[in-house]
Amino acid sequence: MNKKEVKLVEIGPRDGFQNVKEFIPTDVKLNVLKGLVSAGYKKIQITSFVSEKAIPQMKDAREITDYMLENHSDLDLFALVPNYYGAKSAWETGLREITPVMSLSETHNQANVRRSHDESINELKKIRDDFPEMKITQDIATVFGCPYEGKMEVGPLLELIGRMGEIGIDAITLCDTIGVAYPAQVEEVLDCVYKNFPDYEFNFHVHDTRNMGILNSYISIQKGINSVQTSIGGLGGCPFAPGATGNTASEDLIYLLEHDGYDTGIDFSKVLETAKYMKENINGNFSGHHINISVVQHGFN
Amino acid sequence: MNKKEVKLVEIGPRDGFQNVKEFIPTDVKLNVLKGLVSAGYKKIQITSFVSEKAIPQMKDAREITDYMLENHSDLDLFALVPNYYGAKSAWETGLREITPVMSLSETHNQANVRRSHDESINELKKIRDDFPEMKITQDIATVFGCPYEGKMEVGPLLELIGRMGEIGIDAITLCDTIGVAYPAQVEEVLDCVYKNFPDYEFNFHVHDTRNMGILNSYISIQKGINSVQTSIGGLGGCPFAPGATGNTASEDLIYLLEHDGYDTGIDFSKVLETAKYMKENINGNFSGHHINISVVQHGFN
Repeated sequence: MNKKEVKLVEIGPRDGFQNVKEFIPTDVKLNVLKGLVSAGYKKIQITSFVSEKAIPQMKDAREITDYMLENHSDLDLFALVPNYYGAKSAWETGLREITPVMSLSETHNQANVRRSHDESINELKKIRDDFPEMKITQDIATVFGCPYEGKMEVGPLLELIGRMGEIGIDAITLCDTIGVAYPAQVEEVLDCVYKNFPDYEFNFHVHDTRNMGILNSYISIQKGINSVQTSIGGLGGCPFAPGATGNTASEDLIYLLEHDGYDTGIDFSKVLETAKYMKENINGNFSGHHINISVVQHGFN
Repeated sequence: MNKKEVKLVEIGPRDGFQNVKEFIPTDVKLNVLKGLVSAGYKKIQITSFVSEKAIPQMKDAREITDYMLENHSDLDLFALVPNYYGAKSAWETGLREITPVMSLSETHNQANVRRSHDESINELKKIRDDFPEMKITQDIATVFGCPYEGKMEVGPLLELIGRMGEIGIDAITLCDTIGVAYPAQVEEVLDCVYKNFPDYEFNFHVHDTRNMGILNSYISIQKGINSVQTSIGGLGGCPFAPGATGNTASEDLIYLLEHDGYDTGIDFSKVLETAKYMKENINGNFSGHHINISVVQHGFN
């Protein structure tokens, strides 16, 4: 039987690291990135180009990017950018894919990037116009629920994706920012977006706040999502839920998928080894089961 | 739209408590049980009738059972028993449902209850013969994998269920003792057992060792399992995986199912309240996300 293929995207070096208070030395970050590359990852969100004042953890964005582009230009490397200035910095380092952020919930968009929807769309248009060769993979936050507005609806999501399509956004990442999505909702949203935008690339980014990250990731894969994002060691957090876990842990999802008949193209043991290196060298909130507990038993990792 | 019904069985007062080293005062145990009853649980595994020397935590089995039968005889109350002696004790207190334990893996059966398969079946037959009015819901451990023998196969499982059927066992609980099952395996096993024993009651008991408890529970519900067992607060452990998490956390699964359109008949907030009481009063390994982190946001518990 042929294995089903699934594309996993690692975002720990951005979403995980950015939630660690203590500065992680650049060489530790690079060691993690090297581990991810050696494990077989083809696409990694390596950093974000943000204000050093806002997120000091990301102040080595340029150094990280330089190293990765010099040594691993064959991979899909991308970075998060909160605004035009970030997009420009990313372009200047030589990166050719960025992730701007905008929330489906306008209240959350104001809280997160201090812009109305119209202002965010205008900023995005400016990025699109000035960097026509850049792949723009747009994060849409709070797609399934918002800490201020509650459950979100599909109608406004489709409208927002339509506006993004008009200005030439290349791909969309649907984000469950606070980890409230449930299977029936994930199915409904994915059915709607693929029906309305059949030629688009859609990716899934889910936080594990309520222990539904693995399940919802699994559901999105069943629905044929283009890629699923996870964070090694489950490293991360959520500014709106103190103590909350981060994204789905990469090693847990890889373990599941490899056993369930999928080909992830990623070496579980190397990811676990890298996660263990992180736990020893980074003082953060690791929520991955495989890294947090001893589960080595006969025939099972 | 009518909600789909699903039957959840709470096993924390047995599987959870028994993994706590420090003795939990009987009144704390009873307060947890009262909380579960007030939350709407209809079926609870309240204790186990085991040797006090082997598991001192369960030494108040009789007191717990007396209280529950006196005050909540309308509920389905049951206890785990490792042998004939335990079954006799349970019968004498007035309980009318028990869970003997036997492992699909013969190596694990020897380690766990020090018997061969034949010896376990003989013991079971003796229980069946002497207590014909007792409902026997048999736990089959290591159905999906064994710490000694590795992955388990469906053939020997069907054979074992057949032997149990011949001696008049009333229901079967399929246990993923070390938390290694994956969706395709859960689907295969459930398809096989329901095909071969269409009139049987099958229940599902899964440990969350590798963060697949919620997903596998969800899959078993999709497959029409008769009931799913969970442990409040995710309290528990596994003797073969030090530091491992317990069963799927009741409150996490209830949260998921209620959002996903199921009627569990259980009040999430009362379960969460009870889980919080436990965390304050019991020094154990709580793995439930809802109890361990603050996730209260607009419109979401």
